[in-house]
Amino acid sequence: MVELKGDERLDYLLAEDMRIIQSPSVFAFSLDAVLLAKFVYVPIQKGKLVDLCSGNGVIPLFLSTRTKGTITGIEIQERLYDMAVRSIAYNHLTDRLHMIHGDIKEIHKTIGHDQYDVVTCNPPYFSTPAKSEMNGNEYLAIARHEILCTLEDAVRASSILLKQGGKAAFVHRSGRLIDIITLMRKYKLEPKRVQFVYPKAGKEANTLLIEGIKGGNADLKISPPLTVYQDNNEYTPEMRNILYGEG
Amino acid sequence: MVELKGDERLDYLLAEDMRIIQSPSVFAFSLDAVLLAKFVYVPIQKGKLVDLCSGNGVIPLFLSTRTKGTITGIEIQERLYDMAVRSIAYNHLTDRLHMIHGDIKEIHKTIGHDQYDVVTCNPPYFSTPAKSEMNGNEYLAIARHEILCTLEDAVRASSILLKQGGKAAFVHRSGRLIDIITLMRKYKLEPKRVQFVYPKAGKEANTLLIEGIKGGNADLKISPPLTVYQDNNEYTPEMRNILYGEG
Repeated sequence: MVELKGDERLDYLLAEDMRIIQSPSVFAFSLDAVLLAKFVYVPIQKGKLVDLCSGNGVIPLFLSTRTKGTITGIEIQERLYDMAVRSIAYNHLTDRLHMIHGDIKEIHKTIGHDQYDVVTCNPPYFSTPAKSEMNGNEYLAIARHEILCTLEDAVRASSILLKQGGKAAFVHRSGRLIDIITLMRKYKLEPKRVQFVYPKAGKEANTLLIEGIKGGNADLKISPPLTVYQDNNEYTPEMRNILYGEG
Repeated sequence: MVELKGDERLDYLLAEDMRIIQSPSVFAFSLDAVLLAKFVYVPIQKGKLVDLCSGNGVIPLFLSTRTKGTITGIEIQERLYDMAVRSIAYNHLTDRLHMIHGDIKEIHKTIGHDQYDVVTCNPPYFSTPAKSEMNGNEYLAIARHEILCTLEDAVRASSILLKQGGKAAFVHRSGRLIDIITLMRKYKLEPKRVQFVYPKAGKEANTLLIEGIKGGNADLKISPPLTVYQDNNEYTPEMRNILYGEG
């Protein structure tokens, strides 16, 4: 059993045999979070993973199907943190998934630095909006805009948490490629793999996935392109495979 | 009529109604040069273009079909410069295509700085080889290795030649993405468009095309992916279109 609050729903987490609490007025996970959870290399049998800007916990929940390691999710909004905690309990994952209500900029003081194998982060994408735009919905504004967490905050925090040789993986708008590469190098996370996501064949990319290694050597690979929709607006076979395990 | 020297051949320049002098022992143009000549944005009616590391002149010859502007090619190897000069004459393009035998590091002293609309460059891709590797063929070693021209030389020279708002376009190995972006920013060429070239569907990229604007604003687009071969090892339709104007 799970307590649902307000307009919350208990949604299926795609193909996984799992449920997740969502709320249209507070937060619903995006395709980008799912792509990141599938993109990142993870240790299978054990390991210590952290997900920053965790929202309702979609990435920790997804990652739990790919690794037997422990996963810590960090979320600054108490309302979202609380949704993630209840989803983890509903899915009987409290033995190795753990949420912390906190600020990623200070979290190494709580959970320790230089010791994690993998850090993931799907950070807010957009620069801080004008006050007038923020009046509407503070939950969504914080999740989408760099109000409490900038891209640099996310990259710096990832580097502090990771051990040497540990992996950081991010998803962001493809227009931020140069910024994210520059920041990763600044914080000693050498970019190793980039994958661009294209909405349709023949269109420019809108999203990028990037993974770097703390203290790694320069040796960048550009993964095969990922196209989301077919011309008929249905998912491509490769996307259906990612989302539903088909094909 | 054209004088052919040694093992030179007068090859067709792909779909264009044009010929080019090639020599297997000295230099033959690559697919990458053709992709760059098709990728770069050029003014149609007029303009001043420069091609650095021009080899046998393949990029100036190709660009002459896309613009009515003047095109200057710079080549440091006299043997290749001489092939380009004869190809330009054979194709009756001496009124607006001009080759210079010189070093790109000093060329602004000869042809002027801060005045060109477009600079293209397909530079040597590989770091300087050991002496033992270079014994074989000095022509090919200089064309392929960073012996007389490094990537930084090419980016710096492009920036010096271009006027504000002028465009620089390069082709290189995709593994050099971070280096080329870093160098372009260092020399005030803001990257605006990147296209990755994949040998086949499902494979990692091996080549990148990148265009920047001197003094431009940060606003990077990732162009649709370009795949070269089908599974049956024939060119894809998009490549046949680039090479032969089909489809």
